[in-house]
Amino acid sequence: MKTTAAILIIGNEILSGRTQDTNTSTIAIWLNSIGVKVREVRVIPDNEKTIVDTLNILRKTNNYVFTTGGIGPTHDDITAESVSKAFGLRYEIHKDGYKILESYYKPGEFNEGRQKMIWMPQNADLILNPTSGAPGFSVENVFCLPGVPSILKSMLGGLTNKIVGGEPILSHTINLRTVESEIAKSLTQVQNNNQDVEIGSYPFFRAGKLGVSIVVRSTDKAKIDTCNNEILKFVAEQKIQIVKEV
Amino acid sequence: MKTTAAILIIGNEILSGRTQDTNTSTIAIWLNSIGVKVREVRVIPDNEKTIVDTLNILRKTNNYVFTTGGIGPTHDDITAESVSKAFGLRYEIHKDGYKILESYYKPGEFNEGRQKMIWMPQNADLILNPTSGAPGFSVENVFCLPGVPSILKSMLGGLTNKIVGGEPILSHTINLRTVESEIAKSLTQVQNNNQDVEIGSYPFFRAGKLGVSIVVRSTDKAKIDTCNNEILKFVAEQKIQIVKEV
Repeated sequence: MKTTAAILIIGNEILSGRTQDTNTSTIAIWLNSIGVKVREVRVIPDNEKTIVDTLNILRKTNNYVFTTGGIGPTHDDITAESVSKAFGLRYEIHKDGYKILESYYKPGEFNEGRQKMIWMPQNADLILNPTSGAPGFSVENVFCLPGVPSILKSMLGGLTNKIVGGEPILSHTINLRTVESEIAKSLTQVQNNNQDVEIGSYPFFRAGKLGVSIVVRSTDKAKIDTCNNEILKFVAEQKIQIVKEV
Repeated sequence: MKTTAAILIIGNEILSGRTQDTNTSTIAIWLNSIGVKVREVRVIPDNEKTIVDTLNILRKTNNYVFTTGGIGPTHDDITAESVSKAFGLRYEIHKDGYKILESYYKPGEFNEGRQKMIWMPQNADLILNPTSGAPGFSVENVFCLPGVPSILKSMLGGLTNKIVGGEPILSHTINLRTVESEIAKSLTQVQNNNQDVEIGSYPFFRAGKLGVSIVVRSTDKAKIDTCNNEILKFVAEQKIQIVKEV
């Protein structure tokens, strides 16, 4: 049984195309390293009903849910209140969170806007923020992180001991100077021989040259090696060049 | 009544974090310009049942669905077959698509792998590909595009006349040298005064300096101007610096 997670990106700015989401990739790479597979990502607007409904689906169908965005001080930051509603919990000032921000800011600077950031679902666990003070929080299997990528990144390390994952998901990449259609048949054969290994094929265009990256993923190093050998065999037979740098 | 769309990103490589999705932003910006609002994005794995089930939800709850990925020649490209199943259509060789690729490739080069790319749902409409030959396709309100960003981008122009949107969604951004908590209260007031305008607040850190971008979005230029004036008013009162370049 695999440990699974969903990522819920909350924010109009991603849906409008103004902001390019990079948090999915950051969270997914970290989760893979601790043996959690991301099964689904959803991007939704800053709308309370949508957040509540989506969260109530995802938290029941995945071991973990990670949300990003909407925990700042402005009117469009409605994640904490929405999470409270999804769990039927009171939305209130978090006492430990209050103390953290009270000592983080200079006297007089802990204004109403900043205080909004420590309104959370009742009894939420704090996720400490080494970058900019304001903590994230978790309730049961839902972990709420900020949308700013550098701050989010700095908070993941502190979360690792709260997540129970499986074996790390390993991955091996082979880059070839070829096009997908030249290797499709051989690669299908390798996939058929190794059905519980995930084999992906991704074309690339770099410095005016075409190529294909083959990515083999599994928790079992031996299975990756077997696939790798089968791939190297047809690569040699078809006289395809292997490239180091993509 | 707004015209809405969902974007369905199909690909294990996005869920594993290996590849950073950029297609969402490309498609969303283009859709905004033709008056279509992206209401939801989902990223799902290369799994037939997941693709079929997700597509059958999204195509009934949105005016349009745009899928990316999974239409190439390799074993992990299963979008066309999955879309056929979602619509209950035969999965077969598309005759016009066949002719396009037959004349695109040199004699003898139109091999089995390449031929896979013109297997499509019965009677699908082709989406022409000016970059690399292999077309995308549409069935009813579902438009299937490739995952490679540069190819996808080149295909959107040809789609514009197939989409019936509303008024273009306009947006205006004001960049301020401040932090969110300093403007949260004033900005909430502006949002309350202008409830049908979408006002977003996004902190930025660039060249060692903090700032906030305020983004105002509406189809009505006059409403954007009203918000803009109200924002400029409190910005002047609070003596906040406006910055041109972020």
